[in-house]
Order: sequence, then C-alpha cells, then structure tokens
Amino acid sequence: MNEPATHGVIHGVGIGPGAVDLMTVRADRLIRNARHLAHFRKAGRQGQARQIIGSILRPDVNELAMEYPVTTEIPVTDPRYNAILSNFYAESVARLTAIADAGEDVVVVSEGDPFFYGSFMHIYARLTPRQRGDVVPAVTGMSAAWTATGLPITWGDDVLSVMPAALPEDELVARMSAADAIVVMKVGRNLNRVRRALQRAERADDAWLVEYASMEGERVRRLADAPDENAPYFSIVLAHGEGRRP
Amino acid sequence: MNEPATHGVIHGVGIGPGAVDLMTVRADRLIRNARHLAHFRKAGRQGQARQIIGSILRPDVNELAMEYPVTTEIPVTDPRYNAILSNFYAESVARLTAIADAGEDVVVVSEGDPFFYGSFMHIYARLTPRQRGDVVPAVTGMSAAWTATGLPITWGDDVLSVMPAALPEDELVARMSAADAIVVMKVGRNLNRVRRALQRAERADDAWLVEYASMEGERVRRLADAPDENAPYFSIVLAHGEGRRP
Repeated sequence: MNEPATHGVIHGVGIGPGAVDLMTVRADRLIRNARHLAHFRKAGRQGQARQIIGSILRPDVNELAMEYPVTTEIPVTDPRYNAILSNFYAESVARLTAIADAGEDVVVVSEGDPFFYGSFMHIYARLTPRQRGDVVPAVTGMSAAWTATGLPITWGDDVLSVMPAALPEDELVARMSAADAIVVMKVGRNLNRVRRALQRAERADDAWLVEYASMEGERVRRLADAPDENAPYFSIVLAHGEGRRP
Repeated sequence: MNEPATHGVIHGVGIGPGAVDLMTVRADRLIRNARHLAHFRKAGRQGQARQIIGSILRPDVNELAMEYPVTTEIPVTDPRYNAILSNFYAESVARLTAIADAGEDVVVVSEGDPFFYGSFMHIYARLTPRQRGDVVPAVTGMSAAWTATGLPITWGDDVLSVMPAALPEDELVARMSAADAIVVMKVGRNLNRVRRALQRAERADDAWLVEYASMEGERVRRLADAPDENAPYFSIVLAHGEGRRP
C-alpha cells in the first residue's frame, strides 16, 4: 500500500474552564468538525472534558479516550510514577499518530489552556514538527474563578503568583508572602495545607475558595467560610491584589 | 416621565488576545447582538478592541468610544494622573448608566480578560449591583503569547509570576529570581529595563519577546535576538518554566 499523499495533524485544543460557551469560536469550530477526537480521563470515568463538549460533537465522531493509568494513587516523588506516565503518553502518541499517518486530523481537547499546567503538553512534546497542528489557547480555570468572585484579580502594578497546591507548605508560604495576587491551582486534597500556608503568610482573610468555576455546581466562598478538609481536584483558592487604582 | 419598567445592565466582555475567533462563543454572541457597545481607546485612534470586533458588529449598533485622557504622557506617580483618570472613569460610568437607566443593555468590550489588568474593572467598581451585568472572562494576551512560542509556560509544580513591566528594576529582579515561569506584561517602552532585570536574574537567555500575539503582525523572537529598545505597548516578555515532566 502506498503512503497517503497528505499527512494529518494533531491539534491541541483548549476547551476552557467548563461552560460550553466559554470555548473560543476557533475551538468550537474545530471540535464541531472533528472526525477524530481524543480526550483524557481517569479510568472508568466519563471525563470532564468529554462531558463539556458532549453536546457539540458530530454524531459520527471517532472518539479516543486516553485513560490516565494513575492520578493520585502513587506519589509523584515515586520513580514508578514518572515511568508509568511516560509510557502512557508514548502509547497515546502512538494512537494519535496512527490516525495522522493515515491522512486524517485529530483534535485533542484539554480542560483550560493546553500550555498552562495541561496534559496535552506531554503529547505535544513527543510530536514531530510535521505532526503538530494548531494549539488553540483558551480561557483558564483561574480566569473563570476570579470572575466568579466578582472582583478583579490584579490592579495597577500588582504581581500575580500562580502556584500548584501540591508544593511543600514552606514553599507555598514563601510564594504567597511575596505575591500581591495569589492563585493556587488544583487544590483538591491539599486544602488544609493551602489554608495553613495562607494563614502563615497572613493572607487567609483575603482568600476565596472557588469550586467548579463557570460550571453547573459553581460554588464561591470566602475560605474562612469553608470548613472543608478537601475540595474537588480542579478547585482554585485565590486572593486578590489590592494595587493602585484611580 | 415614568421610570422604565426594566433597567438595562452593563456587561463587561473580554474579547481575548486579538484574533477574532479567539473570542469565546459567549462574547461573540453578546457582541453580535449588542445594540449599544462601548470600548476604550486612546484619543484620536481607532482603538485595538474596536478593530478586533469590527467585522461582527450590528450595522445599526450605537457605539460609545471612551477616550483615555492620558496614557503615558503623565507618570503614574504624579497625583494629577489619578485625578484625571478617576474623573474619566466617573464620566464613562455616567454615559453607560444613562443607557442602562433608559432600559437598554450595554456591552463594554475590553482586550484580554476584563478582571486581569484591564480597564473595565475601574468601570465595574463604580457600578451598583443592579447595574452589573455579566462579566465574561476571556483568553488572556499571555496565553496567546506562550502559545505563539510553541512551548508550554508551566510544567508540573512550576510557579508562574506575572508582573507589569512598569515595576522598578530591583523589584523586577527579585520577582524574576523567585519565579520558575515569568510573564512580563505591557512591555512597551520598558523593554530595556526588563532586559536588564532578566540579565541580573540570570533568565535573559531563556526569555522571549512576543509582539501582537495571535494578531496580524504577530512576531515571536528570543529576546537575545531582539536588539530593540522599545516594543509595542501590549508586548509580552516571557520565560518558560522547566518543571518536572514524565
């Protein structure tokens, strides 16, 4: 059999924070037209990304679910964690490139922005330049979160620090103490450590906990009003800047 | 004359980084249907926001241009700066609320995300709760900038610091030294100071200069390859994180 005359490409499309109409027009168009669509999910779950775009897919779309072999069961410091994930991304790339090599394009969707703490970057880094299609930036979960609080995150010359909740407590404290505006990503089971760090950095009174920003079930509270020990994985804790304003 | 039975509201709609199809579906719909649309611009200019959305406006739209009385002519440390801008925002709010009080909605567009270093927040802060319509988050200019470099901005547990270029050089150095990933906003005439700060923080070799991200005229260079002394106002300098990855 001859090689196909053209090669398909692998698009990385951010679908934004969760509300289907907070996708960009470009993402919406690529997803509606996709013949092959891939998404990440935890094994056995429907997957949040798939759920968000469910209503706009072609009826005849070919779907590829890329199932994380581990998420939080093995600590990231365990050497097996890297090996297992590395193998998972290599396998996923093999599935995607098989489609592209057959001359068809694939759309890989990711929650939030693909190049901002996303999983797609691990796919992208393993592609050759010829396999790389468009990467479509998106509204981040943190933008939806600060919008949900009804308060601007940064004013004037404020510095914003964005940090993953998984950092050690002392490092969180140092980062929070140096920042004007604070965003803590992927809070989940780290809520208590994040709360302690904010207290030590003297920012706990300013902080908000935002769950499911822009989605059904959106919940916005002052952190002080949230006695919870855990939060959903994609929850965000933030504290607004108070910079110069006319 | 009687009060109208219903009051209009003032929507704050982010239009994203510049490409018209990087607007969200929600923003696109609100702008296409807007009978009254307000945008910011420098006196005598067409204004970037207005230019981006020009192709999707209703032919009979009523446009309000809100013209900044000063931009960079007066230093922000001059007390007159705050007084002049404060007056400008109060006048703009009066124009917008006159429409809302007559029972009509107004869409105020802003470049990027309205609650992230935007001008709309100064309008929003002056509105009563009844006057406040939807605030629509958007793709930020920085997302478009890091996407344009073809490299993810953050990996694993990287901390991202976002800072305005107008900060004093020593403060830039301190912030850059503490960060894994760096975004410097609104570079413009501060390019040389930003470059010196990156050198002192030993991050100049990693840095990129992105002009007009996602727009016609987009230009992406390693900072080391950009001998320029100035850059367009909305240019972004960034340095990617190098965190853990499988």
